[in-house]
Amino acid sequence: MPSGPDSRVSALDSLLEDAGLDAVLATKDASIAYLSGFWGLQLERFFGVVVRPGGAALIAPSLDRESVNAAPGGLERVLYSAGVSNGLPELFERLDGAKRIGVEEDHLNYARSRALIEAGYELVPATDVVMRLREAKDAEEVEGVRRACAHIQAVYEELWASLAVGAIESDVNAHADYLLKRRGARDAGSHILFGRHAADSHGSPDGRALAAGDVVCADISAQFDGYWGDMTRVATAGEPSDWARSAWAVVKEAYDAAVTATRPGATARQVDAAQREIVGAHPEIGEVLHGAGHAIGLEIHEPPFLVPNSPATLREGMIFTIEPGIYNSAQGGIRLEDDVLVGPGGPVLLSDAPLDLRVLGS
Amino acid sequence: MPSGPDSRVSALDSLLEDAGLDAVLATKDASIAYLSGFWGLQLERFFGVVVRPGGAALIAPSLDRESVNAAPGGLERVLYSAGVSNGLPELFERLDGAKRIGVEEDHLNYARSRALIEAGYELVPATDVVMRLREAKDAEEVEGVRRACAHIQAVYEELWASLAVGAIESDVNAHADYLLKRRGARDAGSHILFGRHAADSHGSPDGRALAAGDVVCADISAQFDGYWGDMTRVATAGEPSDWARSAWAVVKEAYDAAVTATRPGATARQVDAAQREIVGAHPEIGEVLHGAGHAIGLEIHEPPFLVPNSPATLREGMIFTIEPGIYNSAQGGIRLEDDVLVGPGGPVLLSDAPLDLRVLGS
Repeated sequence: MPSGPDSRVSALDSLLEDAGLDAVLATKDASIAYLSGFWGLQLERFFGVVVRPGGAALIAPSLDRESVNAAPGGLERVLYSAGVSNGLPELFERLDGAKRIGVEEDHLNYARSRALIEAGYELVPATDVVMRLREAKDAEEVEGVRRACAHIQAVYEELWASLAVGAIESDVNAHADYLLKRRGARDAGSHILFGRHAADSHGSPDGRALAAGDVVCADISAQFDGYWGDMTRVATAGEPSDWARSAWAVVKEAYDAAVTATRPGATARQVDAAQREIVGAHPEIGEVLHGAGHAIGLEIHEPPFLVPNSPATLREGMIFTIEPGIYNSAQGGIRLEDDVLVGPGGPVLLSDAPLDLRVLGS
Repeated sequence: MPSGPDSRVSALDSLLEDAGLDAVLATKDASIAYLSGFWGLQLERFFGVVVRPGGAALIAPSLDRESVNAAPGGLERVLYSAGVSNGLPELFERLDGAKRIGVEEDHLNYARSRALIEAGYELVPATDVVMRLREAKDAEEVEGVRRACAHIQAVYEELWASLAVGAIESDVNAHADYLLKRRGARDAGSHILFGRHAADSHGSPDGRALAAGDVVCADISAQFDGYWGDMTRVATAGEPSDWARSAWAVVKEAYDAAVTATRPGATARQVDAAQREIVGAHPEIGEVLHGAGHAIGLEIHEPPFLVPNSPATLREGMIFTIEPGIYNSAQGGIRLEDDVLVGPGGPVLLSDAPLDLRVLGS
């Protein structure tokens, strides 16, 4: 597990020959940050890191030069003026002589891929080459996720202490994001849903008020110093209903099973199955809408994904969200989520926040 | 200018034949929202709208079914289970019989483009076909941007009233985002930089404190009910320096010139030149780091971009940010930004917030 941008560039360089590549072009914000220490503001502009034997370069618009120059990585900086170039001529110059170019096929857009192909390059999907490095986190990265979870845990305490019947869902989410950003989050994604709204695991917070008896499904994610934490805890406004108690108990059992299954050598689909067997056995409580979780690090969602069709094998140093849930459109949703390191001897939880069904106003 | 998702689908359908396309596959979140009324949470999952003669379909993961089903558009809904499908088999089924597929080439990723090509489809860049519709805003969309600007304007008043020497940059940004989200923003991007930090127009807010004499360059953007507003105003902590006064006066002159140039028939590069001639004539004050602005609507950055190399012609109904700036690494940065509709008779400002160099603590 290489540590720091420059050793990661060297590690990627050393994978090129085996992968049959002359160069890798990394274009995802997170991959660029991994290899250079620079976080860009990508929008429509081209950013990339080219790694070739004996040399790497960060290509970025000159608008970002201050952050580009301040980044810790030792690689060459190539700045282009976005008003007169789209960055590709500068890219081609750095690729000169290379033929087979590994690209992040799930990120590079079709227009840029065509421009590369028309310029004579042969593109090879290489997301897995980049992710082979990124997926195994070093000790510093593990601490990054752990610190993000500690911030989120502190925000849960503030949330539970202040949340009461009548609170407006969108206000509560805005406030949680504010608390995270006050703590230094670079990005924050609170997703706290009330009552039946929580049955829509991807619903957007709106103007509804918290009512007595509602479940509160509080999914909070935030990125600190580059690394994401992503957790979910649940509460009820007043005493929980029988449904909420039963759903929580089933989800907790599924959570325990999936955490236990998160060990080196297991497959992604096995971890998914460990929780799915449990939550899927209770159609009277609700439905299963998603898999067991996803890898997390510099991105909130990274491969591998813990889903039924994934043969990926878990390796030491990977970090996954484990987040079983059960959803019922008449009642709401219950989900429990933690971030779990695949340690040499099995799962290592990256937070110690209590998992209990919190009862608000009691 | 078609209004509402269904008439936009019909309008796109009517462009297919002239464009030599059997179908269009729209994959950007904003294009999907434009054609269906649905806003997704895309991450790694496939979402798309297929428009074919006589029928359109929204393809999305079943995880999002509640929002998919609640969307106003009348097009067919196709849900796939993300654990067992990547959505492409469902896409191919809807494309059945089509050959030439227009795609958003600046969004569709290389992996999906390859899968389409390997399945026998011919891909044709069609961002311009989709944007031909999206770029000309109807009255409701114009009101959407105007309302977003009104929210931002209200947040400026709260910002100026509360900002004082000693305030921490990252806290001020977190608080502005909070104020925007409390007002109902779906997304918010405050970018308020102090003193010399403002010379880095893309710098990230950090732990520095506002010092007496600092300029404050406050770029605030937010999305309300789908539509973005994006504005920049400037202030100084205490009486402005000679540099700040001179820089403001030059930028204000450039702003006026670029706003005046924002009329039907002008080219994007002409609008850029109108401001660049002015800010570019003062190297003793600072540098020019970016173009005059960009189109705005369902996305914060939309084409066309007001940059030196753009031959795009302005059409009635387009909305642009006009945002000249000047940057000096020893002093900071001054930028003024408003959102401007290309009206039949010329520019129409979508906010009436004062442009003056605000003096804080006076």
